[in-house]
Amino acid sequence: MKLYDTARAPNPRRVRIFLAEKGIAIPMEEIDFGKAEQKGEAFSAINPLQQTPVLVLDDGTVLSESVAICRYVEELHPEPPLFGVDRLGRALVEMWQRRIEFHLFQPVMLTFRHSHPAAAKMGQVQIPELAESSKARTLDFLTHLDSELRKQPFIAGEHFSIADITALVAVDFMRPARITMPPLDNIKRWRGEVAARPSIVP
Amino acid sequence: MKLYDTARAPNPRRVRIFLAEKGIAIPMEEIDFGKAEQKGEAFSAINPLQQTPVLVLDDGTVLSESVAICRYVEELHPEPPLFGVDRLGRALVEMWQRRIEFHLFQPVMLTFRHSHPAAAKMGQVQIPELAESSKARTLDFLTHLDSELRKQPFIAGEHFSIADITALVAVDFMRPARITMPPLDNIKRWRGEVAARPSIVP
Repeated sequence: MKLYDTARAPNPRRVRIFLAEKGIAIPMEEIDFGKAEQKGEAFSAINPLQQTPVLVLDDGTVLSESVAICRYVEELHPEPPLFGVDRLGRALVEMWQRRIEFHLFQPVMLTFRHSHPAAAKMGQVQIPELAESSKARTLDFLTHLDSELRKQPFIAGEHFSIADITALVAVDFMRPARITMPPLDNIKRWRGEVAARPSIVP
Repeated sequence: MKLYDTARAPNPRRVRIFLAEKGIAIPMEEIDFGKAEQKGEAFSAINPLQQTPVLVLDDGTVLSESVAICRYVEELHPEPPLFGVDRLGRALVEMWQRRIEFHLFQPVMLTFRHSHPAAAKMGQVQIPELAESSKARTLDFLTHLDSELRKQPFIAGEHFSIADITALVAVDFMRPARITMPPLDNIKRWRGEVAARPSIVP
């Protein structure tokens, strides 16, 4: 297996943390977005959608999408379970994973893409109004999330899961997206605990 | 169990089709977006994110997010498998499901929300430039998807899966979103076959 990775990009970071939680190392190759390597002929032949991360299996099968790669790793190495521990637990992880993706991860990314000069430089056509509304959606959801984290230690309940990884990567990416974290006690507690795990690689 | 449903809304439709594929009936209650019932006190207490579908279990546990509801149903009723049939198959369904969500379903919804008068009437602040770029992304991805459907009968490979349900609901919603389907032979073949399944409820 080989993992095509991109340093500093949020989606590949999700997979790096997931692998560290599992205690697994996979050979990696860096695709440098600064040099637009993802748009080059060699990488486009591997993933026509020109995104990292991508996992290439020994038989040549190409798996893209962070969560699909993580799910495959979970199938191969079920311990510790990061997609939920029983029927209902797996459904609740799926629910939270999606809530975090759609209401936190995506709005943070959109804020970055539609306001940061580095994104414009990489060819993103920016819509300032979308950056503003995405920033507002991020802040709204954080308030909701804070009230949920008063009731449970981790995003999806009693256990650390892939939803915590997605949420931490999103929250950390608020800095390049230039969104100031509001003072929310439960998120602060959760973030401190999750960020201290040995798996949390940059 | 009880399912909160909304007629004509695309996400609840995904769950209705999924249940029909499994041959399962769950008591349903309609939440009428036309009357803003999702924003009412009663429903907000069930799902503070004010979205349908929502599945409420007999012990009161609330499951929101279409795919989380479908995954729970798959856990209870594994046959026929709609999330993939083996390790790699499950990862490939996850990959395709996400590709369809991010590059087709979401852009179609965004086109509708940011251009259709009915969405404005429901309180959506519209960004016309976002409707335009979302429409362009939809059309770009359809061309890519057409080339993939030349190689395989269903979205995620040899078997019908939840990715086909998501894709069909997205493609059908191009009509209210006012996006004209381009003449793409492989999508036409796939769409005809999938739309003819007895599970495809409105």
